[in-house]
Amino acid sequence: MLMSKPQVLFIAGTHGNEINASWLINQWIKKPEIINVNDFEVVKVIGNPEALHNCKRYLDCDLNRSFREELLNDDQLALYEIERARELLLNFGPKGLNACQIAIDLHSTTSSMGTSIVVYGRRPADLAIASLLQSRIGFPIYLHEGDDNQKGFLVESWPCGLVIEIGPVPQGLLNAKVINQTKLALNIFLEELGKLNTKKAFFPDKIRVHRHVKSIDYPRTVDGEIEAFVHPSRQGSDWHPIENGAPLFLKSDGSVIRFEGSETFVPVFINEAAYMEKNIAMSFTKRETWEFSKDWESAIYSILSL
Amino acid sequence: MLMSKPQVLFIAGTHGNEINASWLINQWIKKPEIINVNDFEVVKVIGNPEALHNCKRYLDCDLNRSFREELLNDDQLALYEIERARELLLNFGPKGLNACQIAIDLHSTTSSMGTSIVVYGRRPADLAIASLLQSRIGFPIYLHEGDDNQKGFLVESWPCGLVIEIGPVPQGLLNAKVINQTKLALNIFLEELGKLNTKKAFFPDKIRVHRHVKSIDYPRTVDGEIEAFVHPSRQGSDWHPIENGAPLFLKSDGSVIRFEGSETFVPVFINEAAYMEKNIAMSFTKRETWEFSKDWESAIYSILSL
Repeated sequence: MLMSKPQVLFIAGTHGNEINASWLINQWIKKPEIINVNDFEVVKVIGNPEALHNCKRYLDCDLNRSFREELLNDDQLALYEIERARELLLNFGPKGLNACQIAIDLHSTTSSMGTSIVVYGRRPADLAIASLLQSRIGFPIYLHEGDDNQKGFLVESWPCGLVIEIGPVPQGLLNAKVINQTKLALNIFLEELGKLNTKKAFFPDKIRVHRHVKSIDYPRTVDGEIEAFVHPSRQGSDWHPIENGAPLFLKSDGSVIRFEGSETFVPVFINEAAYMEKNIAMSFTKRETWEFSKDWESAIYSILSL
Repeated sequence: MLMSKPQVLFIAGTHGNEINASWLINQWIKKPEIINVNDFEVVKVIGNPEALHNCKRYLDCDLNRSFREELLNDDQLALYEIERARELLLNFGPKGLNACQIAIDLHSTTSSMGTSIVVYGRRPADLAIASLLQSRIGFPIYLHEGDDNQKGFLVESWPCGLVIEIGPVPQGLLNAKVINQTKLALNIFLEELGKLNTKKAFFPDKIRVHRHVKSIDYPRTVDGEIEAFVHPSRQGSDWHPIENGAPLFLKSDGSVIRFEGSETFVPVFINEAAYMEKNIAMSFTKRETWEFSKDWESAIYSILSL
C-alpha cells in the first residue's frame, strides 16, 4: 500500500507500567483536538496493551529489547512480546500494511532525566530530528551505542526513530507534570515536523551529545544482593558530571563508596527502577559537541520523500 | 512460651514492591549494629517475601487487608497472602510461638506523606505510641477508621501496632532519603520504647490527629477509565488543607475539576500508585486536636507489663 505522504508512528506503553504517555495517547485517540498534528499523518498505538492492562513492564520479555532479527525470525519463539513486535512491524513497520517512516517511542523513568531524547547508534535521520528538538528547546540527547547487553530497541526497526524519555515519575502513576511534559514534547516534535514538511526547518551548527560509555551495577554481595544504594548527593543528579572521588553509593552502615577514575563522566538513568533487574545502577556517558552534518539533513528529507 | 520481656515485631515488605524498609530490615538482620535496640527484644521479619521477590504489591490479595477473622478462619481459602497472614500470627502474633506485643509495619508510598504514622481505630496503646513519636519529632498522624471498604490491616491483629508510612518514593526503587527516613523513624521509636521501659517517657498534653472522613476516586468515564489526573497544584500537597473551589483534577483538554464542599478537609495519600486499583485518588481527613488521655498511657504500660 502506497501512502500519499509519510506517516509518523507514536507509540506509548511499550513498557506497560509507564502509563503517562499511554494515558495521553489514549486521550488523543478519543479527542484528536488536544494535540495539533499540523496536517501530518499520524498513527497512535499502545505498544504493549497486555502489559499496560496489568501495569507491568512486560509479560514475557522486554518489548523494547525484542526487535532483533534472530528473535523476530525464530518461529519457535511464541513469547507475547516477540509476537507483539512482529505484529507492530506487520502493521506499522516501514513495509507494513499501514507503513510508517518515523517512530516516536514515548517512555517514562524513575530517574531525573527531565525531558530527554534517546537515539540508538548514529543514524543520520535520527540525529537530524534530535538536532531540531535540541536546538528548539534544549532537550539533552543520550546516544546509546556499543552496548552488547542492550539490543533490539523498537525504534531501530524504523528508518528513523527515537525515544522520548521523561522523568522522574514512579511506575504506574499518572503525574500532571509528566503528562504535560509529554504533551509539550509531542507538540514541539510535530511543529518541527511541520517545518520539515514546508522546508522551513532550522538546523543548528552543533549539537551536544551524551555518548554512552558503560553502565555500572549497584554494589552487590557474593549472593547478588544489593548492598549499597545510590548516594543522596548523586540521586536525582542525572546529566551532572561525576569526577574522581565523588560519592557514588552509600551502605547501610553509613560508609561511602566513591567514584574512582581519571575521566569525567556524565551519569544518566541514575537509579531507574526497571534497570535493577538489568544490573544497571546508572550509565556513564561522555559529553561531546558534534558539528551538524548536512548528511543528517538530507537523510531526514529523503525518508520524508521531500 | 512465656517471654522474659515484651517483644516488638518490625515488619517490612508487607507490600512486596515497597522495598526500602525491606532492604533496611534485611541489612539490620545481617548487621545488628546499624540500629541500636536499647536492650529491647526485637523480631525482624519480611511480611511478604514472595511478593518482595517478584517486586509486586502482592501475589493473590493484599496482605495488609488479609487480617480479617472471616478470611483467616476460612479453611477453604488457600490464597498465598491469607496463608502468610496465618503464618505470621502463628509465629509472631500475640499468642504466637515467638509472641510479640507491639507490631510496627513499615511502608512506603508514592504520595508526599513525609514520615507519617497511621493508626487504625482509636486503640489507647496505639495512640500512646503515636503521641510519643509526634511530640518527639512531629510525625503527622493519620487515623484510619470508619471505612467499610478497607479492613483487615496487619497491625490490628496485635495488641498495639501502627504503620510508619514514608514517601514519596516510586515502587521498587531504593532511595537514599527514604532509607534514612525509615532508619530515623526506627531509631526514634526504639528510643521512646526505651524510655517507656525505664518509665521516663514524656507524654504530651495534646496530639494532632488527621481523622479519616472519606476517600475519593479519580474522575472516570462510564467505562471506568480514568479521565482526569490530580491537578499539579494538588500533587505533592499531602497534609495541606483543601477548600471549596480549589483545583483538584485536570483533564487532558486542560479543563479543571474543582473541589466542591463547605467543609475544609486535609487530603492524604494523594495519588498513591497502589490505590488506583482501589479507586482511591486521595483520602480526605479532618484535622483535630485531641487531649492526651491517661488511659492511653496506662494501656501501653499494661501491654508492656510495666
